[in-house]
Amino acid sequence: MYRPEIKVIDCTVRDGGLMNKWQFDDAFVKQVYESTAAAGVDYMEIGYFSSESAFSRSEYGPWKFCAEADLKRIIGNEPKKIKLAAMADIGRIEYADIPLANESSLDLVRVACYAHQVDAAIELAHHVMDKGYEATINLMAVSTITGRELEEALDDLGKSRVPVIYVVDSFGNYYQEDIEHLVHQYQEHLPGKTIGLHMHNNQQLAFANTIAGIIAGANYLDATLYGFGRGAGNCPLELLLSFLKNPKFSVRPVIEAIDRVVLPWYRKIEWGYSVPYMISGTLNQHPREAMAKMDSDNCDRVLEFYDRVSTFPE
Amino acid sequence: MYRPEIKVIDCTVRDGGLMNKWQFDDAFVKQVYESTAAAGVDYMEIGYFSSESAFSRSEYGPWKFCAEADLKRIIGNEPKKIKLAAMADIGRIEYADIPLANESSLDLVRVACYAHQVDAAIELAHHVMDKGYEATINLMAVSTITGRELEEALDDLGKSRVPVIYVVDSFGNYYQEDIEHLVHQYQEHLPGKTIGLHMHNNQQLAFANTIAGIIAGANYLDATLYGFGRGAGNCPLELLLSFLKNPKFSVRPVIEAIDRVVLPWYRKIEWGYSVPYMISGTLNQHPREAMAKMDSDNCDRVLEFYDRVSTFPE
Repeated sequence: MYRPEIKVIDCTVRDGGLMNKWQFDDAFVKQVYESTAAAGVDYMEIGYFSSESAFSRSEYGPWKFCAEADLKRIIGNEPKKIKLAAMADIGRIEYADIPLANESSLDLVRVACYAHQVDAAIELAHHVMDKGYEATINLMAVSTITGRELEEALDDLGKSRVPVIYVVDSFGNYYQEDIEHLVHQYQEHLPGKTIGLHMHNNQQLAFANTIAGIIAGANYLDATLYGFGRGAGNCPLELLLSFLKNPKFSVRPVIEAIDRVVLPWYRKIEWGYSVPYMISGTLNQHPREAMAKMDSDNCDRVLEFYDRVSTFPE
Repeated sequence: MYRPEIKVIDCTVRDGGLMNKWQFDDAFVKQVYESTAAAGVDYMEIGYFSSESAFSRSEYGPWKFCAEADLKRIIGNEPKKIKLAAMADIGRIEYADIPLANESSLDLVRVACYAHQVDAAIELAHHVMDKGYEATINLMAVSTITGRELEEALDDLGKSRVPVIYVVDSFGNYYQEDIEHLVHQYQEHLPGKTIGLHMHNNQQLAFANTIAGIIAGANYLDATLYGFGRGAGNCPLELLLSFLKNPKFSVRPVIEAIDRVVLPWYRKIEWGYSVPYMISGTLNQHPREAMAKMDSDNCDRVLEFYDRVSTFPE
């Protein structure tokens, strides 16, 4: 699929950090930075943009906050090699803690929200745009709301100035047909805006659904190195770049980063497809119970998990 | 997708056995037998149908041969609970070694062949049909032949009496669009025949490609427990059954079999997505070099592998 409008966003540090509270050393983050830049990736999402009053640095690593001093340490003294993004959750960042864009190394702020938070998300996104940043809104967990709620949220987003709105499959519940349908629905309600895709791999469909979304017209594509991300993980960047035919992308630096810094983490904390994540995905449930199961000593006792979570209460 | 014509074939013992030379104990095979039957799966492919003169029992387990005495031990004294299938490779089974169907516990013989072997495959398939078996032909590695070679093979198959012809993605090279295209091409050249799907997971697309093939009209669907199969493995049965809406299928027995007998093997030999398989898939190469890499002590040194196999000779 060659389409010059396509932008690829590497979310390894941000989404992978959900698995280790962003306790990455600088060598890890620098390797991701160098490699995604060399691969032609458009943005590197380097963490969450949170206020230090909301979380403790003794519990969370630097990429929970994306403070300017930490960003500068990764970029070093040379000119920045790739645009940097951070995700902001509603209620976890004070407006006063957001510097002007020309005083920050961040280029893009991605506001994550649930449907009932859309107004707050638009306000925050407009605020960061007024400070000089690019902005997107990533509308999460739409597989759990009604069609009417989704249409209302989309119509609100359609009236905003935010130029990029994401289809997010938070629970890894969707099939290709669903993604195709959602992208078309978003396009209808959001004329003139760009549609993004952020998929999870509970059903081994993160990459396939990203392809389906591209074909339907989405142009902002999230992926992570070797799928590193919460629970079942994300669309693997190495697969996505090898699918995209734009010659600006190259796969080798991605393989290099996986070799040098990602597989060592994989041998420690193992994200990716597993039966508990498959079950939470097919049941359209938040992955938290599956994550607890995978963290437990009896993670392979999957029948017990199935019986526990698939029983509908009377 | 509810379509009563759909048949699901579990290939765990046959394709998974490629990873351990079919050294499964009877408890494993019996559990797969009981669980696939309880899940409503239509066929269990229990191994390869090979002549004992072609392979040694000291090297290969019983499911390389599918001798009647071994089959009987699994079925026990009760009536057979699920139809049994075996795969036959051209040149590895003597016609004289194939009993009449009414003297065998096998119901279906699946003849695997490359395009240049299509005539031999048709002859063997007709032979087993004349002995009373159902038959399919699984045309392998079509991603490596020209369009003209494929059309010629399909036209030959179209003139045969074999009722089911498989689209096989041997190298895990195809995207959903390719599978959709192939299923339609097979349908055009094979009027009146049923199309089957056998996918590999090198690009995490085995399940997605199976969905794409179903939507295009394929009705024989191969899958394995937790994707257990050669290299990157196959379409996971637990995902496929949870996608299919036919109430005859049930997922719980599949989860039970994975819990009891499949995950213990997974902890020993680890099939499934990995960077070497991803590379061989995207390069449309046989997985043998990737399998050797994954078996080596430096399986995580994936950049070396990429540089070695992606360089085109001068």
